[in-house]
Amino acid sequence: MKLNRNYDNLQQSYLFSTVARKAREYSQAHPDADIIKLSIGDVTLPLAPVVVEAMKRAADEMGKKETFRGYGPEQGYDFLKEAIAGYYKREDGVDLALDEIFISDGAKSDLGNILDLFDADNTVLIPDPVYPVYVDTNIMAGRRIVMLDSNMDNGFAPMPDEGQDADLIYLCSPNNPTGAVYTRGQLEAWVAYARRKGALILFDAAYECFVSDESLPRSIFEIEGARECAVEFCSFSKIAGFTGTRCGYTVVPKTLLGGKLNAMWLRRQTTKFNGVPYLVQRGAAAVFTEEGMSQIRANIDYYRENARIIGEGLAAAGIRFVGGKDSPYLWMECPNGMDSWDFFDFLLERANVVGTPGAGFGKNGARYFRLTAFGDRGRTIEAVERIKKALG
Amino acid sequence: MKLNRNYDNLQQSYLFSTVARKAREYSQAHPDADIIKLSIGDVTLPLAPVVVEAMKRAADEMGKKETFRGYGPEQGYDFLKEAIAGYYKREDGVDLALDEIFISDGAKSDLGNILDLFDADNTVLIPDPVYPVYVDTNIMAGRRIVMLDSNMDNGFAPMPDEGQDADLIYLCSPNNPTGAVYTRGQLEAWVAYARRKGALILFDAAYECFVSDESLPRSIFEIEGARECAVEFCSFSKIAGFTGTRCGYTVVPKTLLGGKLNAMWLRRQTTKFNGVPYLVQRGAAAVFTEEGMSQIRANIDYYRENARIIGEGLAAAGIRFVGGKDSPYLWMECPNGMDSWDFFDFLLERANVVGTPGAGFGKNGARYFRLTAFGDRGRTIEAVERIKKALG
Repeated sequence: MKLNRNYDNLQQSYLFSTVARKAREYSQAHPDADIIKLSIGDVTLPLAPVVVEAMKRAADEMGKKETFRGYGPEQGYDFLKEAIAGYYKREDGVDLALDEIFISDGAKSDLGNILDLFDADNTVLIPDPVYPVYVDTNIMAGRRIVMLDSNMDNGFAPMPDEGQDADLIYLCSPNNPTGAVYTRGQLEAWVAYARRKGALILFDAAYECFVSDESLPRSIFEIEGARECAVEFCSFSKIAGFTGTRCGYTVVPKTLLGGKLNAMWLRRQTTKFNGVPYLVQRGAAAVFTEEGMSQIRANIDYYRENARIIGEGLAAAGIRFVGGKDSPYLWMECPNGMDSWDFFDFLLERANVVGTPGAGFGKNGARYFRLTAFGDRGRTIEAVERIKKALG
Repeated sequence: MKLNRNYDNLQQSYLFSTVARKAREYSQAHPDADIIKLSIGDVTLPLAPVVVEAMKRAADEMGKKETFRGYGPEQGYDFLKEAIAGYYKREDGVDLALDEIFISDGAKSDLGNILDLFDADNTVLIPDPVYPVYVDTNIMAGRRIVMLDSNMDNGFAPMPDEGQDADLIYLCSPNNPTGAVYTRGQLEAWVAYARRKGALILFDAAYECFVSDESLPRSIFEIEGARECAVEFCSFSKIAGFTGTRCGYTVVPKTLLGGKLNAMWLRRQTTKFNGVPYLVQRGAAAVFTEEGMSQIRANIDYYRENARIIGEGLAAAGIRFVGGKDSPYLWMECPNGMDSWDFFDFLLERANVVGTPGAGFGKNGARYFRLTAFGDRGRTIEAVERIKKALG
């Protein structure tokens, strides 16, 4: 058989394995060093009690013949879609029909799988630095990729260039890795551009729950006209700690191409997917109850406070950075024009703190460094003190 | 943007919706009719107690900071892969390395997603009648499909034709929808053919647990040379009632193309997938404990006995059929040369029994009918009595 040759064009990312190896080697050479990781992109707080209870109740239902559930709808149960629609209405003032919401095992799966719906002959616009999945999934299909510079000059919120054509446009706000958040006016410009070009915006809203500034949009659908040019991906990973429990959702408006894209995604999902576990959907729905929202808000606030503490420390040390305000990520400029891997070594040796070199996210990250707010409070405070001292 | 035009070539299947509509209409016209469904392809017995307990314990772990788990390995936890490798060794005498096993949310997902690894320019061999997903997923990618006649003449176990070229070959044994099972000798012929043609066999073993005849292979890897030409898909859906709990696995031997296919699948899964929920993996692993195997065997035996009862009834009524012995499916010839939809109506009206018209699985199903063993025992016995009477 003939293989998909595009896979040969993928570059192996050694970012996280190299970070882990360097930390391990340092630790072996300095067994007394107390290393703190501010590199982690995963949550550390446990699932909310209402989620655990909902999943245990659902497990019991599955153990009894009268309440057992077999195949569910591939696109998700209505009880969860209704909870999500309610959240969009309440938080963002956005109206969604239930058949515009597709439940899945996570944003990463959907971001990759949705590319099934498009021809290989499309031009893809991707910001740099970026979550590597956007790039790799398009390389796998052999699409033309145009990188969009995201840098300190544009506040890591790159804007459209009328001279550049595009068919598919990736936007992630709040951004991974930079933590930058698009304003309403900026997203309006992107929507207008996409509509002029007949392009589709793939909007990654995985970090929307970190937005506390009410003037900032959390959903692309808060922007007029977005229902005609955008699909939105979201996840329970960060809002409710589902990174190991797996649930997300994708919104495909029926107003897109007269409903054609919604019908194609439904066809893709019913043909190549069999739905999210019933008990996980019950857990996810519990997030949106009054008690659930109050429990997960406490977790989000915990991470937000970590971000604030890191940001305060960087500012005190005279470091330029974006993010950390409506995002769990802080994207700092390496001091003294240092290269991001050199700064990694510097911080590991001088402060015993591990972060993520920006070079791993694209060429515009070469002199930047990502710190994250997902750690333990006490350890985060300690890390910030050490960073300030090392830079002092 | 340009859409994937291949989606326009998909045919909408109205099989199950038409079956449901006809049953509903009959029920409305005859409110006193007690309709029995032998059409169901979903399990009806609840999850085994060990599975429920394992999932509840895992939910509790996720609710405590010390035992919480975030992102797991995309390809699955070793504890589950070890349990699966043990099952293959014990049941089939097959040795698998842990990195040849990839845990997923089900065979349907993997059967679709694995096509990412292949060029559109491949010839795909698919038996007819067939599980429609094999056909649709290849139409989505615009591949040439050659249908392979599966009929009473070849015992619904079609064999390779040396004059026919093929790159990808779908085999499902025990078969859905026919219930036919390939013998060792037949699979040896397929493996030899695939190796001569340089083709890959996509072996769907979703129903392997129903094989009770020890001379019949349950895994393609029981056949010498299969590690050089086959990938196997399996699932917890039928062995342990996971249709609504979602877990499966795919075996990609490292001996395939010198390890290249294994590496490509790992790349695909780590890029477009984020793993199966931790608590579901704990539930799946519990299936392979001694207590778990004993609990699920009781369920499988229950379905097997249903199949035996249906087969006995059909034989008594002088109906020709295959399956029902090492499979939950029975594939019967419609009496008197009747068309499968006519027989559907006949059975609904005369016996108030619902089955699945073979026409929905391909042209060779036009005069066949599928009955399933996943129902309640008492209802199955009652349905068989009614069928015998209607045909008497």
